[in-house]
Amino acid sequence: MMSHLGPLRCGAWASLLGQLLRPPHAVCIRAAGCHSQVAQAVLTSQQKPHQEKPNFIIKVPKGTRDLSPQQMVVREKILEKIISCFKRHGARGLDTPAFELTEMLTEKYEDNCGLMYDLKDQGGELLSLRYDLTVPFARYLAMNKLKKMKRYQVGKVWRRESPALVQGRYREFCQCDFDIAGEFDPMIPDAECLKIICEILSGLQLGDFLIKVNDRRVLDGIFAVCGVPEDKFRTICSSIDKLDKMSWEDVRHEMVAKKGLAPEVADRIGEYVKCRGGISLVEELFKDPRLSQSQRALQGLWDLKLLFEYLTLFGIAEKISFDLSLARGLDYYTGVIYEAVLLQSPGQAGNEALNVGSVAAGGRYDRLVAQFDSKGHNVPCVGLSIGVERIFYLVEQKMKASGEKVRTTETQVFVATPQRNFLRERLKLIAELWNAGIKAEMLYRNNPKLLTQLHYCEKTDIPLMVIIGEQERKEGVIKLRSVASREEVTINRESLVAEIQKRLSES
Amino acid sequence: MMSHLGPLRCGAWASLLGQLLRPPHAVCIRAAGCHSQVAQAVLTSQQKPHQEKPNFIIKVPKGTRDLSPQQMVVREKILEKIISCFKRHGARGLDTPAFELTEMLTEKYEDNCGLMYDLKDQGGELLSLRYDLTVPFARYLAMNKLKKMKRYQVGKVWRRESPALVQGRYREFCQCDFDIAGEFDPMIPDAECLKIICEILSGLQLGDFLIKVNDRRVLDGIFAVCGVPEDKFRTICSSIDKLDKMSWEDVRHEMVAKKGLAPEVADRIGEYVKCRGGISLVEELFKDPRLSQSQRALQGLWDLKLLFEYLTLFGIAEKISFDLSLARGLDYYTGVIYEAVLLQSPGQAGNEALNVGSVAAGGRYDRLVAQFDSKGHNVPCVGLSIGVERIFYLVEQKMKASGEKVRTTETQVFVATPQRNFLRERLKLIAELWNAGIKAEMLYRNNPKLLTQLHYCEKTDIPLMVIIGEQERKEGVIKLRSVASREEVTINRESLVAEIQKRLSES
Repeated sequence: MMSHLGPLRCGAWASLLGQLLRPPHAVCIRAAGCHSQVAQAVLTSQQKPHQEKPNFIIKVPKGTRDLSPQQMVVREKILEKIISCFKRHGARGLDTPAFELTEMLTEKYEDNCGLMYDLKDQGGELLSLRYDLTVPFARYLAMNKLKKMKRYQVGKVWRRESPALVQGRYREFCQCDFDIAGEFDPMIPDAECLKIICEILSGLQLGDFLIKVNDRRVLDGIFAVCGVPEDKFRTICSSIDKLDKMSWEDVRHEMVAKKGLAPEVADRIGEYVKCRGGISLVEELFKDPRLSQSQRALQGLWDLKLLFEYLTLFGIAEKISFDLSLARGLDYYTGVIYEAVLLQSPGQAGNEALNVGSVAAGGRYDRLVAQFDSKGHNVPCVGLSIGVERIFYLVEQKMKASGEKVRTTETQVFVATPQRNFLRERLKLIAELWNAGIKAEMLYRNNPKLLTQLHYCEKTDIPLMVIIGEQERKEGVIKLRSVASREEVTINRESLVAEIQKRLSES
Repeated sequence: MMSHLGPLRCGAWASLLGQLLRPPHAVCIRAAGCHSQVAQAVLTSQQKPHQEKPNFIIKVPKGTRDLSPQQMVVREKILEKIISCFKRHGARGLDTPAFELTEMLTEKYEDNCGLMYDLKDQGGELLSLRYDLTVPFARYLAMNKLKKMKRYQVGKVWRRESPALVQGRYREFCQCDFDIAGEFDPMIPDAECLKIICEILSGLQLGDFLIKVNDRRVLDGIFAVCGVPEDKFRTICSSIDKLDKMSWEDVRHEMVAKKGLAPEVADRIGEYVKCRGGISLVEELFKDPRLSQSQRALQGLWDLKLLFEYLTLFGIAEKISFDLSLARGLDYYTGVIYEAVLLQSPGQAGNEALNVGSVAAGGRYDRLVAQFDSKGHNVPCVGLSIGVERIFYLVEQKMKASGEKVRTTETQVFVATPQRNFLRERLKLIAELWNAGIKAEMLYRNNPKLLTQLHYCEKTDIPLMVIIGEQERKEGVIKLRSVASREEVTINRESLVAEIQKRLSES
């Protein structure tokens, strides 16, 4: 059973899942066993529902969610693939606190500061939850005076955006970042970042994808030669960033009416940002009479040309689109920027295609570390972030469509008995299995029914069952049952662990 | 090189580590390669340190820390062992948000509410960072109307305690929790929790340990028969909880002078809480003329007797000490409680032994879920929490003492060249390796020196080196070098991947 997370409210989903999650074995009341009658009476009176009803609605905070065991299994598989790719490229792990000093984060996100979660002033430092993993990484580099580092980090970040759950967007979400910090020859680390995005998206089998690439210096050059005043570069850049969600007409209107750009300047920009293509577009722009006047743009174009050469050597050039409308929202980028989009959603018929936005993005940020260094020393950086929540949502959809079943436990052996008063034998036996590293479960009941035990194994897909009863105890043997084939063999009690290990290594 | 985290300030440590972390290859200035002279001039001017010096001290928030790559490797090994034990016992994974509605958390920790991190009221819901993983688990059970669940959760929790870094205590720290929710026959899940603690502490090879066990009902019974008024049970319980850090005299003084207990009542309590032992102490207390008057105490004693029987079957009874001074700080416990302590610190001579406090703890909390259920329905629970920060600190100390080296990358192959102008060949070659799933690195330089490349491999313990030069290109071959033995073999270019995979599978 795979989960359909999207259109349901978080609570509704969790509640639905809750019903499906209940283990199949029957409830057994606790007041049994070896208690004295007196103690038993006390026990019973204490087992009554305690009158401590909550006077509030039980929910998770807006824009957040729990991950059920089913969801955790899917998520862990995705994260494992992403992390193994990061490690394949020689990255080291890093962890930073969930919150930073507020002053470390402000001015790093410009327009987005209002989206930060601040902690209450309870005396002491003013703190905010991290908004991404990039700024903490830059802070780490500066604080430790590191001039080079290739690191990955997987962790939650928090943004107080209006949550649109349908699109898999949350206020608390997980990011998987890979970054290369250091002074190197141009475009070699940048090309590797794009290679990594390709490896991850291919490896997750999310269908066809495209990586849009642009360069902040080319954008700035366009703004300059089109006549945008320098102090409006960043705000015009954020208007351009909306082109994937808004029409050119609406973006133009925003730039002219709201941001005071001259209409002819906006129209000149419009000519450029409609362009997309491959290396040939780079060559064309080199010859553009207006743009070639901008040294900044030329510098960006040189780097893009080199980047395309390296991407061809990596065999991924056909996945890349030079797209002048790509602007990226975050303020700290200084050079190449990129964003990966899926061309169709996996496991979905064409007309049901989902709008999931970008699934990976990143770019070069050469001046962020200097903002944390007391001497203004700089460390150029380039990196990428995988939008794991969206990928997670898509993989869930895909698994749901294919009817793929998810096991939420890894239990290999179930310890059962057909008879009453065999709890002690089961406890001794299961401890032996645990001590041998075998994943084993039993029912927490003194006298469970055999049928209940069989059902539990079938429902939770436990492959092997060990059965001990009066007959077996007498003869010093154990029954070993394959749950799927229902075949049973009788083996010596002493060779049980060895036999199970043999069976498990064969399967 | 292993890290000595303890006595250093977090910042000082990170700074020291920073110096050690720098990769050994020389810095190459970025302004090289195929840039035009014009573009180059622009580039150079842009590469100057940007004048954006911060006007504040760069640090992490009080009581928090970054985990360096070295620390991450150690942590991941520890977490992997803990999680694999949880899975061996059939637990499912769960994740909950970092923060909860403040009202969900208040009244759950009694005296400790002031230690919660609240989020600023930025409009909308009032939120607090989670204080443990137990209350969110109870909230999850109630919200999803789950009557049974065996789950584990690994995640950070936050407490605004005065941080004593030397002892490995932080305001942000990681917890690893395992809990069994549901109505079952008495003491079977409880015994499994103690078994799990034993398996984890043995598996981590932290030296000898002991698990103190008590029962809240026995404590309450002692308070009742000694004459403590019912409304003072909880506050007297928290005084008793301090017995591992304070002398009996000081605890007695607190109870009498601060909490208004009659001196003779305190003295009667003193007689009991000095007791510790095994199953024989349980039998003794059954016969205690005063305590046997308390039905609550008798009920606890019955359960403890049964627990000891099961622990004997599990083969861990000798690790358990029935200790009447154990009280546990958290308010929600209702039955059996336990706390594991190390008897000596690993890798340390006797007189240098570290006070690390408890490394695992837990207990039964049968009335917490009802506090979240709108109809007051109850789900009895029992669980444990592994204090991974303390274990982490101890393992670091142990590795430091033994001089064990930690590799922070997993790179298997380094792609090198002895000649200039071989960047393109290296890029093609490394992409082939990545595509075959081989963990590979190269230097991000157009023309690195061979010696620099060799040093990089030796410093980062990369076992294999692939070398391509003019000669090899001409002949369609590659040199494969073992970094440790310095042996080189020449192989066909086409069989490179197969040969590397063969070598790696053999090692």
